[in-house]
Amino acid sequence: MVDTRFFHSAGPIRLNEIASLTGATAASADGERIFLGVAPLDRAGAGDISFLDNVKYVEAFAQSKAGACFVRPHYAGRAPATMALLVTDDPYYAYALTAQRFYPQPEFAPGISPQATIAKTATLGKGVRVDKGAVIGENVNIGERCRIGANTVIDDGVEIGDDCRIGALCTLSHAILGQRVLLHRGIHIGQDGFGFAPGKKGAVKVPQLGRVTIGNDVEIGSGTCIDRGAGPDTVIGAGSKIDNLVQIGHNVQLGLGVIIAAQCGIAGSTHIGNGVMLGGQVGISGHLNIGAGAKLAARSGVMTNIPPGAAYGGAPAVPIKDWHRQTVTLAKLAKKEE
Amino acid sequence: MVDTRFFHSAGPIRLNEIASLTGATAASADGERIFLGVAPLDRAGAGDISFLDNVKYVEAFAQSKAGACFVRPHYAGRAPATMALLVTDDPYYAYALTAQRFYPQPEFAPGISPQATIAKTATLGKGVRVDKGAVIGENVNIGERCRIGANTVIDDGVEIGDDCRIGALCTLSHAILGQRVLLHRGIHIGQDGFGFAPGKKGAVKVPQLGRVTIGNDVEIGSGTCIDRGAGPDTVIGAGSKIDNLVQIGHNVQLGLGVIIAAQCGIAGSTHIGNGVMLGGQVGISGHLNIGAGAKLAARSGVMTNIPPGAAYGGAPAVPIKDWHRQTVTLAKLAKKEE
Amino acid sequence: MVDTRFFHSAGPIRLNEIASLTGATAASADGERIFLGVAPLDRAGAGDISFLDNVKYVEAFAQSKAGACFVRPHYAGRAPATMALLVTDDPYYAYALTAQRFYPQPEFAPGISPQATIAKTATLGKGVRVDKGAVIGENVNIGERCRIGANTVIDDGVEIGDDCRIGALCTLSHAILGQRVLLHRGIHIGQDGFGFAPGKKGAVKVPQLGRVTIGNDVEIGSGTCIDRGAGPDTVIGAGSKIDNLVQIGHNVQLGLGVIIAAQCGIAGSTHIGNGVMLGGQVGISGHLNIGAGAKLAARSGVMTNIPPGAAYGGAPAVPIKDWHRQTVTLAKLAKKEE
Repeated sequence: MVDTRFFHSAGPIRLNEIASLTGATAASADGERIFLGVAPLDRAGAGDISFLDNVKYVEAFAQSKAGACFVRPHYAGRAPATMALLVTDDPYYAYALTAQRFYPQPEFAPGISPQATIAKTATLGKGVRVDKGAVIGENVNIGERCRIGANTVIDDGVEIGDDCRIGALCTLSHAILGQRVLLHRGIHIGQDGFGFAPGKKGAVKVPQLGRVTIGNDVEIGSGTCIDRGAGPDTVIGAGSKIDNLVQIGHNVQLGLGVIIAAQCGIAGSTHIGNGVMLGGQVGISGHLNIGAGAKLAARSGVMTNIPPGAAYGGAPAVPIKDWHRQTVTLAKLAKKEE
Repeated sequence: MVDTRFFHSAGPIRLNEIASLTGATAASADGERIFLGVAPLDRAGAGDISFLDNVKYVEAFAQSKAGACFVRPHYAGRAPATMALLVTDDPYYAYALTAQRFYPQPEFAPGISPQATIAKTATLGKGVRVDKGAVIGENVNIGERCRIGANTVIDDGVEIGDDCRIGALCTLSHAILGQRVLLHRGIHIGQDGFGFAPGKKGAVKVPQLGRVTIGNDVEIGSGTCIDRGAGPDTVIGAGSKIDNLVQIGHNVQLGLGVIIAAQCGIAGSTHIGNGVMLGGQVGISGHLNIGAGAKLAARSGVMTNIPPGAAYGGAPAVPIKDWHRQTVTLAKLAKKEE
Repeated sequence: MVDTRFFHSAGPIRLNEIASLTGATAASADGERIFLGVAPLDRAGAGDISFLDNVKYVEAFAQSKAGACFVRPHYAGRAPATMALLVTDDPYYAYALTAQRFYPQPEFAPGISPQATIAKTATLGKGVRVDKGAVIGENVNIGERCRIGANTVIDDGVEIGDDCRIGALCTLSHAILGQRVLLHRGIHIGQDGFGFAPGKKGAVKVPQLGRVTIGNDVEIGSGTCIDRGAGPDTVIGAGSKIDNLVQIGHNVQLGLGVIIAAQCGIAGSTHIGNGVMLGGQVGISGHLNIGAGAKLAARSGVMTNIPPGAAYGGAPAVPIKDWHRQTVTLAKLAKKEE
């Protein structure tokens, strides 16, 4: 059960519709049965649909009161008798589609708050909403159906495509955003990169003359900072998903569909290939190439190029099998020294 | 001496009162002597009370001009002749009580700034202050004597208990706060967790349908982000203290009195027991259990459950003695290789 | 070519002027030739000046269409025939001066936004600009020609010297800033340090009674947090440059010209000497001394004092040669175990 102060179900929805939406098999269940929402295994009731995706929760599954549950064929035998089974090879994906069906992204009423400040030369598309205290600079272009959050500051010349949602308390400058970009809160995009040339009289500031370009369908978490390029642009490829408190330095280029967990840091001029996945708190040095499809374990410290498709871990990062072997070897040797 | 532009002493206060407040023994000192404030050893004067808590500062203690000082019996002999000694087994705790007595948390005048924007359906308790530019949404409930900082944004439906202080430039949504919660600045609570289900056509966003619940007497540092639950709630137990720039993922549960130093990151669905202490920059993977009373050294990278009361360090984290032994062993072996 | 929506060149400028500004030798080139701006090697055209500073980009240099380029004598032979060479021992420094000449820091029109809120007892110097939604407290003093960004909040008593630029969405309290301080966005300065005295009834808050003092010519990146002192001040020495998302604890003292890359954390009461350089994501424990001129590699975890001028790396940090040797030794030993 969700908290109805915050969430509103689009249900009820019949089981057959869910099966059809997700491709799951509603084996031996009443397809006309209706459901009101989704819930985790331990909190779901008869009107909820749940999912089992992680072996750690098989026991919770066996004891769940959920009316229906997405489950892999392998675990179906552990289900309680009253549960309708939605059998699928990808329960989490099926759950995601179902949850989106019950709880679509909230609509917003268009309109410009009288407490917002919008420069005369800015252009806003149809259906845009600008919340209280937002500040929009000269020659900013905002596409249709965008929402600009409260107290967010958008500097002169920024371009924002259609259907973007910019949360509260963000700053954007020197930036070009595609469509359907979702920025959470407190995100800072387009500030100067960290560029200083050491000289005899101390460090001299290097003007940062590039931009940040952000592709379609990018989502960025709260507190994340993306510096603009020093000369080249900083580029966030379409479909990339970036978590909270991530640092992306100047001239960094992310390919398509890159996934970056919280608190990662990517130093200047590094290129990250399509579909790369970074665990939390990874650090990557500057001027490196991370090959497409590479996976870096949480807390990796990357000081060299990484080949496409490789899995690395540790600091300095090495192939993940080597990292595990090194960990085991060191533990063994330390035991001997006792 | 504090800077009187920023701090105002409630003194003068007699030594006897300080001794009585803290349980310290004012051995062979004039109990009627009055003091004006507190100060660190190297800056204190005759009107100040100081403390010695760390062996690194014994020399500063021996040379201090402080009028009085909290000190363990062991170091009392090193005191300058003019110093009144306040002997106690816990000088830092006694100092904290004394500093609170001289410098209580500043009062604030209640009132709603005309530059704040408050929805008609929001309810505010007696004695609330809302600063300039704050935005408070529909059906928000704020308890008595709360302060909401400038330009802070509180979304629809949020509940805030009595005597909370929310700093400037925070965002809150999908959140239920207890009493006496202290949020510093630029804190983001309640945004979507990082939930994507990988699929054939790219990552699909998983609706985040839980809340953040925060217990009584929690304090949270600037720049920290706490994502709301994906289905379960994200829970911050009463009395927990969280430092700056910490990341707390969806569904994380902190027990009572958990202490988290700056820049830690806790991945989704991990449970942290009562009284756990995390040093700075610790990272903890998702779906783990950290037992009550465990202590994790700064920069630990935790990939396994941790038993209650255990002390761990390193990455991957191991019992702290093993970590130190591994460090020594590796240094020794590397020397041999030279 | 820069994006003229965001940047405006002060050119054209003659080659002779650039040579004279930077001390580079314009060997065998037409000194009267004019240039319009700067650009990276792979995007520069005939009107642009570029630079070669990193051996990784020699090939891009050899194929560049840049009209002129700063280059070390060693690589001059690789230049395309049409390129005017600006030969120097420090191409990056020369480029920085040149880029500043073409793209000086943007001017701003002075003036107080009618949507800003400024206390009656605050004093603002000549030529100050205060942007929309900014809140300036009682007895704040702001020097001449400062800019205060949109929705930034400056608490009572803060002092700001001449020619400072404070970005949008910052908070300042309990702080004294020198001249020409540059704060980017979303920076939080002066909040309580993380001070709790553990006691039998739980942690007791220790009043934080110091300030933050920031010297001349300091630059601080977005999302960075600097806590005020607990009793002593937190001190940021003149000329220091701090990147994004850095955490600086209470009582930390930075010397002159300290360079700190993104996501570093420095725990309370640590002193950092003049000219120290920290790579990204470094963590330093509390109550330590980092000697002047020391260099700490990215992700170092520092648990001991560091001698002046030393280079350290690893966690726990050791002299950098030892760190590299340990890394190699462990890899070798793990191979043997296979």
